[in-house]
Amino acid sequence: MKFQAVKGTRDFYPSDMAVRNWILDGWKKVSVRNGFEEYDGPIFEYLKMFQVKSGDEIVEQLFSLTDRAGRKLALRPEITPTLARMVNQKISSLPKPIKWFSVPRLFRAERPQKGRLREFFQWNVDIIGVDDVLADAEVIFTAVDYLRDVGLTADDVVVKISSRKMLSNILKSIGITEKELEPLYSLLDKRNKLPQENFEQLLNQQIKDPEKRDNVLELMNADSLNQIGQNPILSDAAKDAVSELAQLFEILDTMGVKDFCTFDIGIVRGLAYYTGIVFEIYDKDSQLRAIGGGGRYNNLLKDFGGPDIPATGFGIGDCVLAILLEEKRILRKETLDNELDYYVAFANDKYKRLAIDFTSKIRRAGKSADFSYKSGKLGKQLKEASSRKAKNCIIIGSEIENEQLVVKDMDTGEQEIIDKDKFFKQLKK
Amino acid sequence: MKFQAVKGTRDFYPSDMAVRNWILDGWKKVSVRNGFEEYDGPIFEYLKMFQVKSGDEIVEQLFSLTDRAGRKLALRPEITPTLARMVNQKISSLPKPIKWFSVPRLFRAERPQKGRLREFFQWNVDIIGVDDVLADAEVIFTAVDYLRDVGLTADDVVVKISSRKMLSNILKSIGITEKELEPLYSLLDKRNKLPQENFEQLLNQQIKDPEKRDNVLELMNADSLNQIGQNPILSDAAKDAVSELAQLFEILDTMGVKDFCTFDIGIVRGLAYYTGIVFEIYDKDSQLRAIGGGGRYNNLLKDFGGPDIPATGFGIGDCVLAILLEEKRILRKETLDNELDYYVAFANDKYKRLAIDFTSKIRRAGKSADFSYKSGKLGKQLKEASSRKAKNCIIIGSEIENEQLVVKDMDTGEQEIIDKDKFFKQLKK
Repeated sequence: MKFQAVKGTRDFYPSDMAVRNWILDGWKKVSVRNGFEEYDGPIFEYLKMFQVKSGDEIVEQLFSLTDRAGRKLALRPEITPTLARMVNQKISSLPKPIKWFSVPRLFRAERPQKGRLREFFQWNVDIIGVDDVLADAEVIFTAVDYLRDVGLTADDVVVKISSRKMLSNILKSIGITEKELEPLYSLLDKRNKLPQENFEQLLNQQIKDPEKRDNVLELMNADSLNQIGQNPILSDAAKDAVSELAQLFEILDTMGVKDFCTFDIGIVRGLAYYTGIVFEIYDKDSQLRAIGGGGRYNNLLKDFGGPDIPATGFGIGDCVLAILLEEKRILRKETLDNELDYYVAFANDKYKRLAIDFTSKIRRAGKSADFSYKSGKLGKQLKEASSRKAKNCIIIGSEIENEQLVVKDMDTGEQEIIDKDKFFKQLKK
Repeated sequence: MKFQAVKGTRDFYPSDMAVRNWILDGWKKVSVRNGFEEYDGPIFEYLKMFQVKSGDEIVEQLFSLTDRAGRKLALRPEITPTLARMVNQKISSLPKPIKWFSVPRLFRAERPQKGRLREFFQWNVDIIGVDDVLADAEVIFTAVDYLRDVGLTADDVVVKISSRKMLSNILKSIGITEKELEPLYSLLDKRNKLPQENFEQLLNQQIKDPEKRDNVLELMNADSLNQIGQNPILSDAAKDAVSELAQLFEILDTMGVKDFCTFDIGIVRGLAYYTGIVFEIYDKDSQLRAIGGGGRYNNLLKDFGGPDIPATGFGIGDCVLAILLEEKRILRKETLDNELDYYVAFANDKYKRLAIDFTSKIRRAGKSADFSYKSGKLGKQLKEASSRKAKNCIIIGSEIENEQLVVKDMDTGEQEIIDKDKFFKQLKK
């Protein structure tokens, strides 16, 4: 019987696994240095939990299953609902602010496309308990800290930032009703992807009043936050939201990441649950899907049956990121191969047992080591040492009768004869 | 709406996540130093793939789901079928021997019990392409290398070893037919868990011939490999298998792990697919379930539609292991908390921007750092630094007017005034 992997999933052969580890370890390292603690939840949760934040449409995108008792479960398509559940469960005992990150494996039953798979990893960073634009700046800094750490520059990637609070207050200033807001968000969210003509056509269908429509168009064509702030139509609430966003950019400047960040009124984020700052990260040429995105979501914990606690965060997936890093030649599979500290070769079969003994001792001292299971010629073993990317090769030959080893530096090719006991003593240090 | 986690799954709060990372990172480290490369597969596969190795009974223990096209999938209950599929797919291009490890998340729809959850992690180590007891010794050494590395001794754990090849050949020498073998394996596998009386009763039902039965009983009561080897009833094939097992113990002695290993004829392993050496790892007091187990399975790749290639390996789960490590006080949650390299405090609100600036710079230099989002008294910030387990606290006070910082060592309490530029220059090294 021959079997295949399910479409949209990935097999991680060692060279693929090295890439996955390189990306996830980088996420973890940067999260920790930014003061975040790691958490994770189960791979599956009760299905209805995923409908709270994302509505009923999400059900179609879920891999669902049923437990023994007939309860409906689903593989998690995102970690935020789990985060909300976990935080709510222990809300009174958790020190605030809660600065948590996770690198969960997630699942979506979508048609696989470039940068979009059915099974993927996503870096999630959240701050819970701080209703201050400083926390939004912290999560944006953390995202940029990673991107910059791996070697991406402001010429490669851009964080496009706006404010949902600002947008809603300006739209209300224009006279858009609460009822009209939701479908308008969906349309504005697509604005950067639609030709101007199509966008205006769809806008015409949603907003019948030509004056309101012109005002929306003028708003969406604004190039700078300054230009928007000077619009006389703005309510006080809208003005406050504009100056909050301006403050965010000031903090990002203080943090030294302003060159990565830009204001873009077209960033809306589809989901209804965002309440403040919103942002998306793109490759500078906009050739790829969004690398990641996030924003403030002050109502989510309450919606999950918890107290009224503010929160902000982001998610960055591994698929689009890996494509970009490969395009930029930052991520190169061939450089990620496992190296071996020592390869232990034996010049004569009678020394094989010694090779086993020495290999075990080297490993026990914390270094990686391997040897040939077959009894083969020394030349063949040295070739094997090379192909295994061994940094050093120990050769057990006639010198061992004098309690000595040959240590060959595989980079320089230099050989050194060294007392066996001295070698193992050095190793332990 | 309030939600709960699904029964048998785990929420990993930061302190639980620290434990999980500690265990999995330990597995990874020891695997790499023993010359193994990491791989992984998808969380779900086609359901029928899991029936090849474990039969139809496994289906009841699976979480199954259906994809859009109506195909039956299942969450993986083990990684070996995926390993077989992946190796078979690239068999001709993979250098041999294949030494791979994985730390997959696995799923079983069983009733949760102590040490047995519906969702768990399992360390898997396999060598493919070597039909030599040396490879069996290598995987056993790797398991012991980990157990010893974390601090367990031969007084804490034991690897009980036998040979399926030996058992089958001895049983055949006794006159047990091929047909009687499978049900007998199942019974012998339970022998260590059953009272002698019950065991003999069940044996009576399976083996009608009293002479054969006595021979089986004598075999199963053997204390040493030597005793078995001297039994005159043994066929040549049985004698070969005995000396192979003796050779294994010699190699384990050479490797320096003999004190962890013991011969136990009662180790059979339930699954039909083992073909040679088999072993299980237990706590010395046998208070817990098996910590792990494995053995040689030379037919699996062929059964999965691939070529006839030998293989050996083991699996160790995280649940029983964690219980043992906690009992032995080796694993202590309280010692695994995240430490912070620097906490940046500000003595006056007017220095808050500087705190943001300095924190960002410290993180960028690769050290972990955090600061207070709130503007609070210095004493409160120092308390926060303490509770965050900061190693050092930077205090921005009036000294900053002279471009100087106060650096407080949180262990000793000592304070030092240092030039700001000098501090950041040192940090970058």
